[in-house]
Amino acid sequence: MAKQDRAIRTQRTILVAAASVFEERGFQAATITDILTAAGVTKGALYFHFQSKEDLAYGVMEAQGRHMGTVPPRSCKTQEVVDTVLLQTYRLQKDPMVRAGVRLAMDQHATELDRGTSFQEWGKGMAALLEQAKEQGELLPHVVPADTAELVVGAYAGVQSMSQAVSSYADLDHRTSVLLRHIMPNVVLSSVLTTIDLTPERGATIYAEVQALQDAAELADARA
Amino acid sequence: MAKQDRAIRTQRTILVAAASVFEERGFQAATITDILTAAGVTKGALYFHFQSKEDLAYGVMEAQGRHMGTVPPRSCKTQEVVDTVLLQTYRLQKDPMVRAGVRLAMDQHATELDRGTSFQEWGKGMAALLEQAKEQGELLPHVVPADTAELVVGAYAGVQSMSQAVSSYADLDHRTSVLLRHIMPNVVLSSVLTTIDLTPERGATIYAEVQALQDAAELADARA
Repeated sequence: MAKQDRAIRTQRTILVAAASVFEERGFQAATITDILTAAGVTKGALYFHFQSKEDLAYGVMEAQGRHMGTVPPRSCKTQEVVDTVLLQTYRLQKDPMVRAGVRLAMDQHATELDRGTSFQEWGKGMAALLEQAKEQGELLPHVVPADTAELVVGAYAGVQSMSQAVSSYADLDHRTSVLLRHIMPNVVLSSVLTTIDLTPERGATIYAEVQALQDAAELADARA
Repeated sequence: MAKQDRAIRTQRTILVAAASVFEERGFQAATITDILTAAGVTKGALYFHFQSKEDLAYGVMEAQGRHMGTVPPRSCKTQEVVDTVLLQTYRLQKDPMVRAGVRLAMDQHATELDRGTSFQEWGKGMAALLEQAKEQGELLPHVVPADTAELVVGAYAGVQSMSQAVSSYADLDHRTSVLLRHIMPNVVLSSVLTTIDLTPERGATIYAEVQALQDAAELADARA
């Protein structure tokens, strides 16, 4: 294994460990020592990649943020917005890194973190998709893409938090579906709405699609 | 001052102190000692009213929950739902007790607390109002009051959290308005929608109305 590959792998190991410690203990109570123990790496290796606990938290949030943007482009941009939400719902139920990133962004006591940035990054991605949807004539004339984008991100954040609190995400599919069915008819033309798939089961399919694309990209990299 | 009045006043002092400590430090990091110092009461007085840190947190959440339900009845139940949301937006900007209660309910690391109950209590109040709205023929035929109620509570929780993170609530009026304008047209008949006041400025008026009613009730009690 090349030196660079090993560094990337170590970084990933540390981030996964940090994610599980932040998820379990919260940002405030988590310590670098907890993360070292969970990752099974040396202090030197950790500080080579991350300078502080804040730095580790940003790493987790960024890794989670990257996941958000990986739905492949759709010709219908509204479907792409919906798919981003459905993928997130699927990942929250399956991926501890995504759960930890979302919890850090929602942690009102992680005052050392600039949590606003994490919200705003999601919002920007959504706004860009909705701008394209507007250009393509998919949206109702009154829609302000930036407002709708921030609403979707904020409302989704609350809905997932409520689902985590009342059912440990067991009802997240239903709550996601209720959210989309309440918001989308006020955003999209009826003619577009009839073509959009809002069913939560779609999440697993999108996840498989994204995984296959990532695997293909890694294989191409390895061959190059 | 009667003994009972003094006890109520002490309890209130302790809850206000607990709210400010929970808001500042988070549930996990807050200690009974912090709360004693902030309240300026004896350990005996505190333990007379509250048995534990969890008990104090429930007290704060419950005090906050009571605030939620105090919009006087409206003939249009949809307006009552909207007013509950607008009042909460006003109070989040003005009342530290409300802020602390909401933060406890949103604190994913307060694992000792049954946070689900707090969400569900709000949901139940909203659902009861929407059931009445449905009976009065205000709602679109497809609306399931319980689903819409839980969506409003969850989505609002996320929107307020995002507003707190990015602007310390400075943009909460705008975000609340965007939320209501996206959801209500899919819940209410157009004919009802035209009669509903969704403007955030209404929050201050409702707050004054609720305060006046509370003052009148206290005066009546004192005279009885």
